[in-house]
Amino acid sequence: MRAVDIIRKKRDAAELSRAEIEFLVEGATRDTIPDYQLAAWLMAVVWRGMTRAELAALTEAMLHSGVVLDFSGLPAPKVDKHSTGGVGDKTSLVIAPVVAAAGLHVPMISGRGLGHTGGTLDKLESIPGFNVNLPLKEFRRVLEASHCALIGQTPEIAPADKKLYALRDVTSTVESPYLICASIMSKKMAEGIDALVLDVKTGDGAFMKRQPDAEYLAELMVETGTRMGKKVVALITDMEQPLGRKIGNALEVAECVEILDGHGPADLRELSIELSAWMFVLGAKTKTIAEGRALAAEMIASGRARDTFREVIRLQGGDPKIVDDPKRLPRARHQAQVKSPRAGYVTAILCEQVGVASMLLGGGREKKEDQVDAAVGLVLEKKVGDAVGAGELLCTAHYDLEERLVHALALLEKSFEIGPTAPPASPLVRKVSGAA
Amino acid sequence: MRAVDIIRKKRDAAELSRAEIEFLVEGATRDTIPDYQLAAWLMAVVWRGMTRAELAALTEAMLHSGVVLDFSGLPAPKVDKHSTGGVGDKTSLVIAPVVAAAGLHVPMISGRGLGHTGGTLDKLESIPGFNVNLPLKEFRRVLEASHCALIGQTPEIAPADKKLYALRDVTSTVESPYLICASIMSKKMAEGIDALVLDVKTGDGAFMKRQPDAEYLAELMVETGTRMGKKVVALITDMEQPLGRKIGNALEVAECVEILDGHGPADLRELSIELSAWMFVLGAKTKTIAEGRALAAEMIASGRARDTFREVIRLQGGDPKIVDDPKRLPRARHQAQVKSPRAGYVTAILCEQVGVASMLLGGGREKKEDQVDAAVGLVLEKKVGDAVGAGELLCTAHYDLEERLVHALALLEKSFEIGPTAPPASPLVRKVSGAA
Repeated sequence: MRAVDIIRKKRDAAELSRAEIEFLVEGATRDTIPDYQLAAWLMAVVWRGMTRAELAALTEAMLHSGVVLDFSGLPAPKVDKHSTGGVGDKTSLVIAPVVAAAGLHVPMISGRGLGHTGGTLDKLESIPGFNVNLPLKEFRRVLEASHCALIGQTPEIAPADKKLYALRDVTSTVESPYLICASIMSKKMAEGIDALVLDVKTGDGAFMKRQPDAEYLAELMVETGTRMGKKVVALITDMEQPLGRKIGNALEVAECVEILDGHGPADLRELSIELSAWMFVLGAKTKTIAEGRALAAEMIASGRARDTFREVIRLQGGDPKIVDDPKRLPRARHQAQVKSPRAGYVTAILCEQVGVASMLLGGGREKKEDQVDAAVGLVLEKKVGDAVGAGELLCTAHYDLEERLVHALALLEKSFEIGPTAPPASPLVRKVSGAA
Repeated sequence: MRAVDIIRKKRDAAELSRAEIEFLVEGATRDTIPDYQLAAWLMAVVWRGMTRAELAALTEAMLHSGVVLDFSGLPAPKVDKHSTGGVGDKTSLVIAPVVAAAGLHVPMISGRGLGHTGGTLDKLESIPGFNVNLPLKEFRRVLEASHCALIGQTPEIAPADKKLYALRDVTSTVESPYLICASIMSKKMAEGIDALVLDVKTGDGAFMKRQPDAEYLAELMVETGTRMGKKVVALITDMEQPLGRKIGNALEVAECVEILDGHGPADLRELSIELSAWMFVLGAKTKTIAEGRALAAEMIASGRARDTFREVIRLQGGDPKIVDDPKRLPRARHQAQVKSPRAGYVTAILCEQVGVASMLLGGGREKKEDQVDAAVGLVLEKKVGDAVGAGELLCTAHYDLEERLVHALALLEKSFEIGPTAPPASPLVRKVSGAA
C-alpha cells in the first residue's frame, strides 16, 4: 500500500477502504508517512469529503492510535459533554459538578482556547494550583473520589489526532466537518464513556457560523458515536452573542460559581441545566428531560454541585476556597468602560469580535504557543434585547497592560449594535439531533 | 505573509496575488516553506485551478527561480519543440538536426522517461559516450558549433520546478493542467528561445487521454508563452498507438537514423516534418507551413540533417559512427515474437499498455530511481489498419532477462485488437492551437 495511491484515490473522489485509512493513521502516528503526503490527503478530504464508512474507519483508527480508557469497573454510567467552542462558553465547569453530584461519572478531557474562543483548561488553570495535567492513573483516582475529573489531552490519548490536528492547523485543513468529527469523537470515545452530549454552537461566535453546517456536523458526530455503540445526542445552540456575562478565564470561573450558588445569568444557567438534563437521560439517571432539569436544579439548590466542585478542585491541587471566596481568583489591575453612544436596545453583539477583544487583552491565544493571562477579560453589562440609555455602561474590560487595551477597546466599541426596538428573543437551544 | 493564509485563500477558491505566488515559489526554492504547506497548496490548486493571471505569475516565478539563458548573441532565431510525452515518441532526435541543419538554433533541454512514456535523455544516452549532463557553458559551445544541443535540466534551471515537481510526484498533484503548464513553460522559457512548438499528445498512450483535456492544456501553454513574449504554437497529435514502429531507447535512436536516411515509418516522418515546419515558420525561416515541410524534407534528402546529427553526437562525446552503422548501438541478447491469434485487421493497439510492456522489459522506469536498459524494447510489425494473417508476427520483444520478458509478453498478447475490418484512418495532427 502506498500513500501516493491513497491520496490519488481520494483526490479522484473514490471511497477509501478501512485498510487504507488505517494505513494513513498508523503512518501519521508512527511518522512513517511524511507530513507532505498527509497534508495533501487532508486537503483532498476537505475537497472531496468522506462517506460515513470512511468517517467511521477514520474515527476508530484515530481512537485506537492510543489508549482507550476503561472505567467499566466504576459503578455508575460514565457520561461527558463536549462543546464545539464559543465565547463565554463555560458550561463544563457547571455541568461536571452538577452531573457528578447526582451520582454519574464525568471523565472530562478538554482542550485549550484558540483565537476568539476560550478553552476549559485555561479556565481551570486560573484557579490557583489547579493541575490539568494529571497522569491517567491520577485521573481515575479523582474520578472515583469526586465522580468527575477534568484534565487535558495526554500523550497516550489519540496521538494520531494530535499529529493530524497540528498539521491541519498549519495547512488550512481544519474546516472539514469530517475531520472535525473524527478529531472530536476519537478523543471523546477514548474517555471510556457510555454516553456523550454534544453542544454544537452556531452563530457569529461559533466555528460553524451557519446553522446547516452545525446541523451537519452534529449529525455526523451523532451517527459516528452511535455506530461505535455509545448514546449520543447533539444540541444545536445559539452563539450569536456570548454565553453569560463574563468572558476571560478567572472571570468565567467566578461566573460558574455564581451559577452553582443559585445565581448568575439566566442563559448560562438554562444551557447548563439543559445539557445536564440530557446527560442524566442518556446516563439513565432520569427518564425524561423534564426530570433531568429538575435534578440538575436540585443539585444546584442543595449546594451538592458546589460541594463537588470544591472537592474536585481540592483533589486536582487547586485552591478550593475560591468557591466560597471568588476574590481569591486572579484579578486584573485595571478596568475600562465601554458606554453606549445612544439610547435604544442592544440589537446584536458581534460575538466573534468580542471574543477577539478578550484575546487581545491577553485572555486568549492568537497562536497556539501564546501564553494566556488568567485575570483579564470582559464583563458584559448589557446583552441582546436589553434597553440602554445614552452613555450607559455596555461592557467593562478588565486589563493589565495599557497597550493591549487600546486594540481591544477599538473592537469593543464597534461590537454592540444599538437600534430603536428590541429584536425578537431567539431560543438558546435551536435543535436537538439524535434524540431517541 | 503566511503560507497558511495563502493556502486557505486558494482552498476557498479566491485568486492569489502575484506577491503571494512569488512568496510560495521563493519559499519552495529556498526551503523556507515546509513541504507539508506546499503539498496542501498544490492539492488546493488541483481542486480549484488557477486564473490566467495566477498561472502567468506562477510560471514567471518558477522561471526566475533560476538562471534564464541568454542566446541573444547568436545570429539565428532560437526555437525549440516540447512534447507532453508518449510511446515511441522520438521526434526530438529527428527535429533538432533537421531544424539546426537549416540554420536555426535549437537549444533543447529535455527530460527522462517515467512510467509508460520514454524520455529524450534516455534515448540519447543509449548512444555510447553521449553526455547529456553538459554544464551550461558547454551547452552554449555545442549550440554555437552545430546549431543544436541536447541536454538535461541542470540545477541552475528553474530549481522551483525541480522542488515542486518532486513534491507533486509523491502527493498525487501532478495532474493539474495549470501545474503542468507552469512546469513545462518555466523550463522552456529558461532556454532563451524565441519560439516554441508544443506537441500535445492525446489518446490512450498520452497523459491526456481525452482530447478536450489536451486542448485545454495546449491553450494554457500557448497563452502563457505568448504572454511572456514568445511565439508559441501547439499541435494536438494522436497517441492512440505508438509513434513509429520502435519503442525502447537504442531502438528509437536507430529508427530516427532511418528517418534521417530518408526511410523509416511514415507517421514518424510525417510528424517530424510537420513539427519542424512549424519551427521554421515561427523562427521566420519560411513563410508558410508548406514551405517549412519542403525545407524539412530537403534537409533530410540532402543528408544535411544527418550530418548535423553526427556532429552534435560528436560534440557531446558520443560515438558519431552510430549514424552510419546503427549496429554499434546497444542490442538486446534475445528476441521473442508475439503473433496474431487470428486473421483480420489491427483495429487498435493499447498504447499505454505497450509502453508499460517496454518499461517492464527494462526500457523504462517504474520509479524515478530505476535504471533503464538501453538495449531492450519492442518493434511493432503491424500498426493500426494493417491486415494480419493468423499466426503472423505482430511485434518483436528485444529482451535481456527472461524474468522480465514474462510480464511484458503477458501484456503484449493483450495489446493488439484484431477485427474483421480496418478502422478508418485517423489524422496524426488533430488540431493546431495558437497559429497566427
